[in-house]
Amino acid sequence: MLKATIVVKLKEGVDDPEGKTIKHSLNLLGFEPVVRVNVARHYEIFIDAPREEGEKMIEEMLRKLLINPVIHEYEVRVEEI
Amino acid sequence: MLKATIVVKLKEGVDDPEGKTIKHSLNLLGFEPVVRVNVARHYEIFIDAPREEGEKMIEEMLRKLLINPVIHEYEVRVEEI
Repeated sequence: MLKATIVVKLKEGVDDPEGKTIKHSLNLLGFEPVVRVNVARHYEIFIDAPREEGEKMIEEMLRKLLINPVIHEYEVRVEEI
Repeated sequence: MLKATIVVKLKEGVDDPEGKTIKHSLNLLGFEPVVRVNVARHYEIFIDAPREEGEKMIEEMLRKLLINPVIHEYEVRVEEI
């Protein structure tokens, strides 16, 4: 069994309204030293396949469903469990 | 400057409808070996404070705004940048 941990972030320069809202809320709550918040998606995907096949599948999943290459960048870590 | 990377996950046993929807979509797209998907929130918070003060602040932020201890668990990594 493979466990893929995938973090999908917004590319530098892409507007992050959710991050801005959280930063603003934290400042209002008294956390003035917070200067920036970035929000990203974190997925754990469990795949019942051998490693090589699983890794190819992950690249394809990212392209087909999980990311928009215009605005997202991503990190993938795959481990056997 | 501190950079805190925080992952907020659903606790084991808490329903994850978004993860289930993504798993179902991946299976329909032909990725049958996907057996489970967990979705979590990933935050990067930049704080202009010394480490000790910043770490206390992070614990407080988590409690006040970012997590619901009934359903969430979290991991925090703090680095100086």
